[in-house]
Amino acid sequence: MRRVYVCGIGATPIGEHWELSLRDLMVLAAKKALEDSTLTKRDIEAVYIGNMSSGILQGQEHLGSLFATWFGIPGVSAQKCEAACASGGVAFHQAFLAVASGMYDVVVAMGVEKMSDGNTYDVTSALIMADDQEYVAFTGSSFVGLNALIYRRYMEKFNVKHEDIAMFAVHDHKYAVNNPLAQYRKAVTLETVLNSPIVADPLRLFECAPIGDGAAAVILCSEEVAKKYKSDRLVEVIASSVATDILSLHNRKDIVTLNATKLAMNKALKMSKIDLKDIDIVELHDAFTILGVIHLEDMGFAEKGKGWMLVKDGEIEKDGKIPTNLMGGLKARGHPVGATGIYEVIDVVTQLRGEGGRNQVDDAEIGLAQNVGGVGGTVTINLFRRL
Amino acid sequence: MRRVYVCGIGATPIGEHWELSLRDLMVLAAKKALEDSTLTKRDIEAVYIGNMSSGILQGQEHLGSLFATWFGIPGVSAQKCEAACASGGVAFHQAFLAVASGMYDVVVAMGVEKMSDGNTYDVTSALIMADDQEYVAFTGSSFVGLNALIYRRYMEKFNVKHEDIAMFAVHDHKYAVNNPLAQYRKAVTLETVLNSPIVADPLRLFECAPIGDGAAAVILCSEEVAKKYKSDRLVEVIASSVATDILSLHNRKDIVTLNATKLAMNKALKMSKIDLKDIDIVELHDAFTILGVIHLEDMGFAEKGKGWMLVKDGEIEKDGKIPTNLMGGLKARGHPVGATGIYEVIDVVTQLRGEGGRNQVDDAEIGLAQNVGGVGGTVTINLFRRL
Repeated sequence: MRRVYVCGIGATPIGEHWELSLRDLMVLAAKKALEDSTLTKRDIEAVYIGNMSSGILQGQEHLGSLFATWFGIPGVSAQKCEAACASGGVAFHQAFLAVASGMYDVVVAMGVEKMSDGNTYDVTSALIMADDQEYVAFTGSSFVGLNALIYRRYMEKFNVKHEDIAMFAVHDHKYAVNNPLAQYRKAVTLETVLNSPIVADPLRLFECAPIGDGAAAVILCSEEVAKKYKSDRLVEVIASSVATDILSLHNRKDIVTLNATKLAMNKALKMSKIDLKDIDIVELHDAFTILGVIHLEDMGFAEKGKGWMLVKDGEIEKDGKIPTNLMGGLKARGHPVGATGIYEVIDVVTQLRGEGGRNQVDDAEIGLAQNVGGVGGTVTINLFRRL
Repeated sequence: MRRVYVCGIGATPIGEHWELSLRDLMVLAAKKALEDSTLTKRDIEAVYIGNMSSGILQGQEHLGSLFATWFGIPGVSAQKCEAACASGGVAFHQAFLAVASGMYDVVVAMGVEKMSDGNTYDVTSALIMADDQEYVAFTGSSFVGLNALIYRRYMEKFNVKHEDIAMFAVHDHKYAVNNPLAQYRKAVTLETVLNSPIVADPLRLFECAPIGDGAAAVILCSEEVAKKYKSDRLVEVIASSVATDILSLHNRKDIVTLNATKLAMNKALKMSKIDLKDIDIVELHDAFTILGVIHLEDMGFAEKGKGWMLVKDGEIEKDGKIPTNLMGGLKARGHPVGATGIYEVIDVVTQLRGEGGRNQVDDAEIGLAQNVGGVGGTVTINLFRRL
């Protein structure tokens, strides 16, 4: 396999973009990423677009040709990639393979979702399509409800207090303050989180990622193209893995472990030949506070049932043992579903480049981005190393 | 790039499968392909599923994990690929790159669409999402209407008679008779085609691909895996290309040429290092009769404006100069949108293996499968050589 590098990143702020359409968001993100890369449109050979619900929410499919048209690059290879909330992650994986294979030298991995103006379906109905329509969605289950089950089971099984898990939201908001792309740039207290309205007990409103619009793009390139850059503009992709699990919770033996995270993690560590302890920063997919805790465990940073201690002890802070979600995470940076996987990559690359501003970690060399689809039906892990 | 081979093919018959769900179709196709390959489930490392409208029609996304679950292979890398009617083609392209890259040795490229039981939207509304929602679908245009515009323009520009184009439907039906997977296994006369109801003038009902359900799967493998096979079970993928065009007709200079076909064709010929004249059989994407004619021209088999002569002169017959759509094409084999690209690959591989039965071409060595999304917004070309 050829080596693959990230040479450009760009994204729109996440929020309610009533004035921008789906195509506008894609074009803006790609434009920023291309400018960041200093490459030109003519260099782009292929585009992979992560998106979950454009059909349902905008009545629009065929985003590959749509984007190529509006970005002024018709002719390129382009397609949409979907794996629910992990759509961005699988688009990145495909873009990675496209360069690694030797077929393309410059590829755009993009993600986009516009959730604030739905079409026929509301967003909750669109999102539950990530789970089994016939056995789960049909019963009226929502994603918040499914994650509340996980949350409840976790608290009972490991005798953990609500506030120790809810702290993850406080953490995310703290760091989002300094991220210009974040949807909610304000700190919140644990009290605010715990006193916010119940969405599905025990999940409070401030423990759930918001609905938002956004697009993010990353330019991947081969070693040949990478040679023209100074090393401070380049980050190498040292592993990219995707794993699936049984789609729905009711068929799994254990609902407080997402097995796909473990599998994807093992693949990624093997591929990159690094150890867990070599990882300096993590961006994980905490659509709900409880998931942040569970992911830390499933990735191996804590024993099962003890992930919350890392949060409580400050170990996921900027100066902690395993700095995590330093740009605001899904709760506060935001979670425009199909775009989230690419935002996570951008957050990691930003840190590895030393461009994290007030949130910058000292001397981060290796970073991890985890993206999750459904209740862990798909998990992608991408690992990056600064040059 | 590593060499990539097709070592297994399998598909459901195309039709109205009221007794089968989307997941059933996928599982049945994959089971057949796996049996054909003699590999086992445990060998599968990644799955790419072409599908356009499962969100709209079944309320189901996240097909990667859904399939992995129901096929009993959770853990594998899996995702859905979408480029409208070219979804199968782009899924194949990704599966090809996944093996070519060196990351995976055994990969399933699959396509599925279940169109006979829609959810909220009807099929016509779902399909127009392949074009621009804001500038085309919004006006009430349908895909039949857009292709009727192309048809009318072609007839006027090149002074071609309706019956000379409509002949393509007669051709497709003739060959579908001997294809056990075909939706309509009966021959039709030119008179029947021309006297069938007008859908969008000049397009008659019998000039339009039908709506149907189906799933098709292909197993791709690396050279290392291929070594265990006798050569009569193997077909090599000698090129795989994807190209886009401006999404909508109203922005194109010329609507009787699909530029993406030309681009994808050039890429594929370059990649495979073969000449156009080396191609022995063609499966092309004739969702409407007129497209069959236009594709023959854009691929280079006829001058612009003269593709219909190949049909009229019998040159696309089994014993003609360029045998085309020998398993029934989109009109009679059927067109379950996201699956069509994979059915086309299967039809080519079947011929190259010499398993075409009554439709078998003598001594075919190289075959081409073309898959088109929207009105040519995306085109994929895959080239195959028997060993």
